[in-house]
Amino acid sequence: MKKSEFGFIGDIATMFGALPHHGFEPIGDDCTVLAMGDEALVMTTDMLIEDVHFLREVSSPEEVGIKSLMVNISDVAAMGAKPVATLLSIALPESAQGAWSEAFMRGYYEASEREGVALVGGDTTASKEKISINVVAIGRAPMANIKRRSDAKVGDIVAVTGKLGISSKGLVDIMFGDINTTAAKAHRRAQARTSEGVWLGTRSEVHAMMDISDGIASDIKHIMELSNVGATIELDKIPTDYDIRYATTGGEDYELLLTVDKEKFEDVARELFATTGTVLTAIGHITEDMELRWLENGSPTEMELRGFTHF
Amino acid sequence: MKKSEFGFIGDIATMFGALPHHGFEPIGDDCTVLAMGDEALVMTTDMLIEDVHFLREVSSPEEVGIKSLMVNISDVAAMGAKPVATLLSIALPESAQGAWSEAFMRGYYEASEREGVALVGGDTTASKEKISINVVAIGRAPMANIKRRSDAKVGDIVAVTGKLGISSKGLVDIMFGDINTTAAKAHRRAQARTSEGVWLGTRSEVHAMMDISDGIASDIKHIMELSNVGATIELDKIPTDYDIRYATTGGEDYELLLTVDKEKFEDVARELFATTGTVLTAIGHITEDMELRWLENGSPTEMELRGFTHF
Repeated sequence: MKKSEFGFIGDIATMFGALPHHGFEPIGDDCTVLAMGDEALVMTTDMLIEDVHFLREVSSPEEVGIKSLMVNISDVAAMGAKPVATLLSIALPESAQGAWSEAFMRGYYEASEREGVALVGGDTTASKEKISINVVAIGRAPMANIKRRSDAKVGDIVAVTGKLGISSKGLVDIMFGDINTTAAKAHRRAQARTSEGVWLGTRSEVHAMMDISDGIASDIKHIMELSNVGATIELDKIPTDYDIRYATTGGEDYELLLTVDKEKFEDVARELFATTGTVLTAIGHITEDMELRWLENGSPTEMELRGFTHF
Repeated sequence: MKKSEFGFIGDIATMFGALPHHGFEPIGDDCTVLAMGDEALVMTTDMLIEDVHFLREVSSPEEVGIKSLMVNISDVAAMGAKPVATLLSIALPESAQGAWSEAFMRGYYEASEREGVALVGGDTTASKEKISINVVAIGRAPMANIKRRSDAKVGDIVAVTGKLGISSKGLVDIMFGDINTTAAKAHRRAQARTSEGVWLGTRSEVHAMMDISDGIASDIKHIMELSNVGATIELDKIPTDYDIRYATTGGEDYELLLTVDKEKFEDVARELFATTGTVLTAIGHITEDMELRWLENGSPTEMELRGFTHF
């Protein structure tokens, strides 16, 4: 469970901390982890609410189906685990019970097929007006492959997969009515870095890992907090085709943010590219003093960057 | 995933049947089952929507919190598994973000503590007007203990735990404004048969099992369909303090419906009572011809009984 909109969530983790854990790791990462012998089972859940996370006028039902799956698959991949199955709950008002729901399921199926995940359970029910969707994704990995937010080490290279900012630029395009730009299409057609996450999970030189859902300016702080470290990020190294604000505070890129042993970074980046075709870019390094610092062309820069508020 | 309100769910199971299963059993039982060596992991999910499953004017937030957990715990227990953890997603409109959500969490915590289950993940988000809640429950059991709807055998005794009909009688009381009757309180304070389910899971004489969420008239058909059998139910044997219609077509009792080897039924019932204090009542038997028959004082009776529509 992410500490999110409501202050009371922090209290919840404390409140429930007193109950028996039955082998589950504490709340705070992209997924919960259950060790079963040498194997880890990981699980995550995300809820999508109409008019909060998507608008029926803007996103096609297929796109909502794809996104519902991908945001969860991304969390599984960010643990270094292979997504294997999902559970889907959906509440439908009358206005969405025919064509909309069928097209939604086609999108969900298309994405499930692409990711090779089974649909193993769920719930369907009515709602009065708005669509509610909840997806749970389940992944498996050797316990040794699991990557946590808490494992960054001082001196590690901070790196990201792919390019940042396209999804939030797309959201702005959509808000201005340009719903068919390249960025707008990317925003609406989410894609998780599944094979990259699974491959990075096998590499012991990769220390901490998470997916970028709220923008690196916000997400790197989760790694800092849980690893008790700081970070220096070089703005001019961030891979993007758009304004740096999209690339740092924009959300929903679903790229991976990771820290890698400094000596092995070049090897890992080269092999990741050879295996998956995805570029891994160094954008900074992990420091000791728990501060987040930004550099621009080597000089400190004052930026007040905040994470993205989901649409 | 239950085949429920929307016809397209049947198609979904077929549609997704072509994808790799990764060791998960097919959709159709109270929970999905994943075998990990000799151990089974079971998972289930239920969504509760404001004004469909509860009304804020009638149910206190604590009661909604308890119910959200218990409907899922009941599905886990019905598999013969021990509930160990849950994931909770909740979407809150502004009007529910303060006192309501805190009281909801107190109810959810109270029920989690009573059941000894951890909260291991979830999601919180905003919604425009209505509350949406989704809970996933996870259980564990030795693989040999798992009870499925598909394992009823011809000649088995059909039995139920406890007494039926109180929850639906309570719902009717509430609809007439009598919100504080014994039945109304029972309706609002759901309780799963957890220790009974886990104990029955250990008994090989227990063949098929499920929880009663829509009333036995509807639920027995799931066992018949998946086991390719019929059933004869004796109306006068159904344990209830209320009108027989509540006891047969009323929903949300969360008692267990099971089939037991005829020769061993008395032993199982006596030992269940000795272990948990819960009465197991024989209400009929499993037949060969896939028909559902009702008897009243030994004579066939014509009844058109249909399952409960959830509030």
